[in-house]
Amino acid sequence: MKAFLVYWHPEPQSFNHAMFVTAQATLTRLGAEVKTSDLYAMAFDPVSSRKNFRTVRDPAFLKLQTEEIYASEHQGFATDLDEEMAKLEWCDLMIWQFPLWWFGLPATMKGWVDRVFAMGRIYGGRRMYEGGAFRGKRALLSLTTGGPAQAYVKHGFHGDIHTILKPIQHGMLQFVGFDVLAPQVVYGPVRMSDAQRQAELDRFAQRLGRLDQETPLAWETY
Amino acid sequence: MKAFLVYWHPEPQSFNHAMFVTAQATLTRLGAEVKTSDLYAMAFDPVSSRKNFRTVRDPAFLKLQTEEIYASEHQGFATDLDEEMAKLEWCDLMIWQFPLWWFGLPATMKGWVDRVFAMGRIYGGRRMYEGGAFRGKRALLSLTTGGPAQAYVKHGFHGDIHTILKPIQHGMLQFVGFDVLAPQVVYGPVRMSDAQRQAELDRFAQRLGRLDQETPLAWETY
Repeated sequence: MKAFLVYWHPEPQSFNHAMFVTAQATLTRLGAEVKTSDLYAMAFDPVSSRKNFRTVRDPAFLKLQTEEIYASEHQGFATDLDEEMAKLEWCDLMIWQFPLWWFGLPATMKGWVDRVFAMGRIYGGRRMYEGGAFRGKRALLSLTTGGPAQAYVKHGFHGDIHTILKPIQHGMLQFVGFDVLAPQVVYGPVRMSDAQRQAELDRFAQRLGRLDQETPLAWETY
Repeated sequence: MKAFLVYWHPEPQSFNHAMFVTAQATLTRLGAEVKTSDLYAMAFDPVSSRKNFRTVRDPAFLKLQTEEIYASEHQGFATDLDEEMAKLEWCDLMIWQFPLWWFGLPATMKGWVDRVFAMGRIYGGRRMYEGGAFRGKRALLSLTTGGPAQAYVKHGFHGDIHTILKPIQHGMLQFVGFDVLAPQVVYGPVRMSDAQRQAELDRFAQRLGRLDQETPLAWETY
């Protein structure tokens, strides 16, 4: 297995970091090759602009998708993006580890998607959804929430976690063709004891050892 | 009326920029006071870290919400965030102008929310949703899409635009108490003629002149 772990959190002592380290160690122990992108440590820049590219298709008017297609055809992506795209293309399992902020990805991880999921090389033409470039690869969201589990159900205080995650699971991952596994959600680790947090790390490690037995989520529609 | 326009796009010749300028000019002509945040021009940094704060509650472990509460009580937010919070508190109408990217906000605008919507000063305790700090204020999303209108309906190619926008309209704006008006959506301006784009700008300007007659969207639940 070739696993690619993408992670963002600004505090290396965070529970999110512990989940990231657990995934890295567990998958390595299971014999997988593991590549990582620790986006905060890398100081990954989330802001799209001309710095996404080494090539220029139209110097007078920045149309990002036009430049992405041109860069795809002329090996014109900036080195930092090229490296991320190469890991994305290399892996057969991708895990995103992040804290759920404002019902979505933290800005840096959203910017990683904005910049790395480039038209031409990563999707476009008929290469999307069921025809996506990454069919056959699997992806898994591993996230923490601020609120408790009972807040994240239909008509709960924040609402159904699966509806909240749909723009990510469907609009990003399934869009480029990934089979999406059920999310690994740890609700409110900030209010847990150390023993409870350790139990969550163990639960994640155990699951990672049995991923091959899992069936992906049904293809979502809106 | 006190209107606050938050806008992000990396190309000043973009249609999004024209929508932003149209809103600014129209509201000014109608007698509103207008404040703006052109986040790309401001080089607004979307990445949360200790630089959000001038104060330090716990130097050994960065818990952002803990630091936010402490900064709220000790005037400890970084100057760039303090200025954005002041505009947010000042306005009675807020408009966000952005291109819909990957079913959500572009990274910089997401990071503006991550950093500016701070626990303590902006929400927290019982101050959220129906009890949100900004009850009585109105907000409106004004966005462009890549795909055509027929792709953004239930069971369409991308799915219902209202479901796609729910994490933003409900999870961010209603969360802090805003009444949310119907979104202003321009579908696929990249494929429009100049005359069609001008018609969209005129449609937006006309709507802005009649906003007082609009009823906010029903409070959403998940």
